[in-house]
This record gives sequence, structure tokens and C-alpha cells, in this order.
Amino acid sequence: MKLCRLGSPGDERPCVVDAEGNVFDLSSLTTDIDGAFLAGGGVERVRAALAAGDLPRAEAGRRIGAPVARPGKIVCIGLNYSDHAEETKAAVPAEPVVFMKAPNTVVGPDDEVLVPRGSVKTDYEVELAIVIGATARYLASPDEAAGVIAGYAVVNDVSEREFQLERGGQWDKGKSCETFNPMGPWLVTPDEVGDPQALGLRLWVNGELRQNGSTKNQIFGVHHVVWYLSQFMVLEPGDVVNTGTPAGVALGRGDGAYLRAGDVVEVEIDGLGRQRQRMGQA
Amino acid sequence: MKLCRLGSPGDERPCVVDAEGNVFDLSSLTTDIDGAFLAGGGVERVRAALAAGDLPRAEAGRRIGAPVARPGKIVCIGLNYSDHAEETKAAVPAEPVVFMKAPNTVVGPDDEVLVPRGSVKTDYEVELAIVIGATARYLASPDEAAGVIAGYAVVNDVSEREFQLERGGQWDKGKSCETFNPMGPWLVTPDEVGDPQALGLRLWVNGELRQNGSTKNQIFGVHHVVWYLSQFMVLEPGDVVNTGTPAGVALGRGDGAYLRAGDVVEVEIDGLGRQRQRMGQA
Repeated sequence: MKLCRLGSPGDERPCVVDAEGNVFDLSSLTTDIDGAFLAGGGVERVRAALAAGDLPRAEAGRRIGAPVARPGKIVCIGLNYSDHAEETKAAVPAEPVVFMKAPNTVVGPDDEVLVPRGSVKTDYEVELAIVIGATARYLASPDEAAGVIAGYAVVNDVSEREFQLERGGQWDKGKSCETFNPMGPWLVTPDEVGDPQALGLRLWVNGELRQNGSTKNQIFGVHHVVWYLSQFMVLEPGDVVNTGTPAGVALGRGDGAYLRAGDVVEVEIDGLGRQRQRMGQA
Repeated sequence: MKLCRLGSPGDERPCVVDAEGNVFDLSSLTTDIDGAFLAGGGVERVRAALAAGDLPRAEAGRRIGAPVARPGKIVCIGLNYSDHAEETKAAVPAEPVVFMKAPNTVVGPDDEVLVPRGSVKTDYEVELAIVIGATARYLASPDEAAGVIAGYAVVNDVSEREFQLERGGQWDKGKSCETFNPMGPWLVTPDEVGDPQALGLRLWVNGELRQNGSTKNQIFGVHHVVWYLSQFMVLEPGDVVNTGTPAGVALGRGDGAYLRAGDVVEVEIDGLGRQRQRMGQA
């Protein structure tokens, strides 16, 4: 099942896409797709209503928002593909590298993304995002992770490399600029995704294929990541985990191919849909 | 003026403390003290109601919660006191070091703080926290920062040093454990705080004075920090900025004086009140 939020920013309505691509409005079932909805059995209520044919069609042609209302936190895993660790000349980590993005960086999958003022190294990162559906605190093993995952989505973990790496201190400084986390189009439930470690990920800039990887090359798989994070923090329904990016980012290419206003970035993961962002200038 | 939230966790009621220490209930004016309240002129409405004598007394003896409902983000400044940078053998930073804490680490000022499972280096940090009252995006200069600050509060920026520094990657891993951001008792408005760069900060463990500093020794003052952050991210009403800690943390002492279950931590800043936490075990 594919959940989405359609409408202008801040005024999105919850919707569901069925197997044939028909879009139905969920406003009669929930005010939004958020942590409370995911934790409160919302997905099962939608499934039942969809099967019963109870849902009205959604209005066509509306903007696609991020598929979950603003998360409580966005936790990110760095250097989680062996090819990306290699291209950035970083050692393959012995355990997950963890950093954070400000939750107000989330925008819709086709919204404008802004190059920050003073930026010369704005970069792209296609990532598989996990959306948390139940509280995760000290999970006993990675096997317990499946029970707290509501689903998956495409994310572009936009990054400013000078801010991240050359301005002193921690990576977060280059990860939290406004519009830096396009998400969606859909939150896809695990039953429909299948094996999360067998998904192709691709990213194009102005039509040129820049990233072309697979989640099979993740150093730490999604269940390991969720279990691991739960030892250091409490994950809550609606939280988002960006699980890292494969090779091909501008930082790794070393040819200065960073993003500029006017560039078009397209981002895709098997079964999770496609994004298209035009870069603007802050 | 001092704003606070009194009641059991998740059920706090907004309150105000007047100059004589009387506590009044604000439920007739607002459902909570949060970003919407701060951005919507809430502080001025409280001031008027207090002056008019319109407010009922608050029920006595209730638990003190954090003075703002869960923030959208907690941004932290590292190594922001010259004495603390020196004790941790870090270079004095040329510009602010920025990291983040998960927003769900916030607890009340006297709530139990949990030593994480597997932790042997849980540490304390008294900090002056800024609460944001209006959106800050690319402020033109530090002079504009005062206009977006709703007030100040005491925070204990609890940190697990092994997780932060010895487990690979970024500091965030040791900063986001549950209960790691006791905050309050009050949100104190700037007019009552006076000069934010002239506040004494103190922290005791089991009655022993461990930290005894002054915000006059901040490398980057609060207005500079807010201006600086606004160049890298959008600060929003209700967001919290932890502005760094002076010398005296266990990491800097080098004597292994980390926190263990049963320890009592007391934290105080001039004019902003006092906290008292008993350490528990997760």
C-alpha cells in the first residue's frame, strides 16, 4: 500500500494509492499521516476501508507533499555503502556513523530545493528512508526491527559539503539547510516493498545518471540500523531514518559537479517512486 | 516574566510565575507553551492578564515539566567556553561547532535522568539554553538576534562520552539518549534576564561543586550564535539552542568522575532557577 499527502504546503490531505494507481482521500479516516496515525493502527484501517470500497476519490492534479507530516527527528546513517565510503576516501565504518538533520528540512518530492546563500558545494544523495511506526527503545536484536517499521520512502539527503566538512566541527552544519530533505512521493508499506536489501537506487542531474546503486551494498542493513539506533535513542512513530547513499555524489566524483540554481535532480528507488526537483537559490 | 509548565509528563498545564513568586494558571489563555504560543504574541497576552489580575492561582505541589512543549529541534554549540575547550584538549574553534540532540530527550528539571545501558561515561554539562520565539532565516547581523529570542532556560546537556567520541563518527550518538536534556524550571523572558553574557552557571554532583563558570566566557555569545545558525538552517518558534558548557565536566577532569545511578546532579544559572536530578539506570 502507498500512502501519500496531497495539497499545498501545510495543507496536505492524507491519501492512499491502490494497486491500480487510483488515488483515494483518507480525510474521513484521519486528519494526517503522522506518528499518531501510524502508531494507532491507521495503516490497517486504511487497508480495510480500501478493501471495502468506502473511500472517495482524491482530487486530481494536486501537489505531492512529503508522505509523513513533519517527523519528530531525522536520523541519518553516514558512509553506509562500501562504494560511497571508498569514493569519499573514508574508512569503512566498524559500526554505523550517526548524525541528524533538522526535521524542518522535509519538503515534497517535487518541490524546489534551495542552494544556500554562500554555498559552492551543494550535493545530492539518493537514500532509502525508513519511517518508524512504533516506539523503538533498546530492541533486543535486529529481528525486532521489522515490527517498528511503518514503511519506506525515497529521500534526497541534500548536503552542503563545505558547511559539512570544512567549517569546523560536526556534519550537521551542512545537512540542515532549508528544503534539504525532499521525501516521497509515497510511504510504501513493507509488504509491498519486499526485501529492503534488494532495491535499486538511481539519481540523475540534468538527465545524466550520477548514482546507480543497490541497497544490497549497504554495510549495515535497515533492520540492523534500526536495532542499533534504538540502543542510543528512542525512535518514535513518525521518525525518519535516512540510511545512507551509494557512490556517485559530487563530493566523491572530485570534478566539482555540485548543484547550482536551475539544475534538475531526479531521484528514484525501485517500487518507491520518483522525485524531480529544480534547484533554486536561497 | 517566568513561564513554566506544571503537571505530570504529557499533561502539563501552562503557568506563569510573578515577581513575588506567585504561580498562576494560563489554561484560559493557551493550551500550552509552545512555538505557536510564542510566535502568536502569547507572552504579551500573559503579561497583560497578569497585570490585570485576571489569572487564577495554579494548583500547588505539581511536578515541574520542561518550560516549552517538545521543541522542533535542539541545536547545540560545542566547545563554546574557552576553559572547556582547554580542558578537553580541543582547539578554540574559529567558528561555532554545531551538533544536534533528538527533541524527545527533553524532560523536566527535576525528573530522573537515566544512565544508558552499557554506559560507563555519562557526563553532565550546565548550559544556558535559548528558546526561539520567531522564525530566524538568514539574519543580517547578530543585532537582529534579540528579536527572535523568546527567552532563556537552564539545561543539563547530558552526554555519553564513549558513545560521543569513541564509537565512530559524529557526536550526536552520545547526545540523544532518553532523558538527556533536563530543561527548566522556567522560560525567563529577556527583559528579566538582563545581560545574557553575565550569568553565573553552576553544577554540583552529590553536593560537590563541579562547574562554576560565567556566560561572559562564551567564545560566541548568544546573539552571535543565533545569527550564525540562521545562515545554515531555519530556526523556528519553540526551537531550543544549547549554548555550550564551561569547564568542569567529567571528561575534562580526567579522574573518571562520571555519573552513576543514585548520583544527584544539581544545576543552576543566575536568575533562571535550579534543577535537581537523581540518576537512574535505563
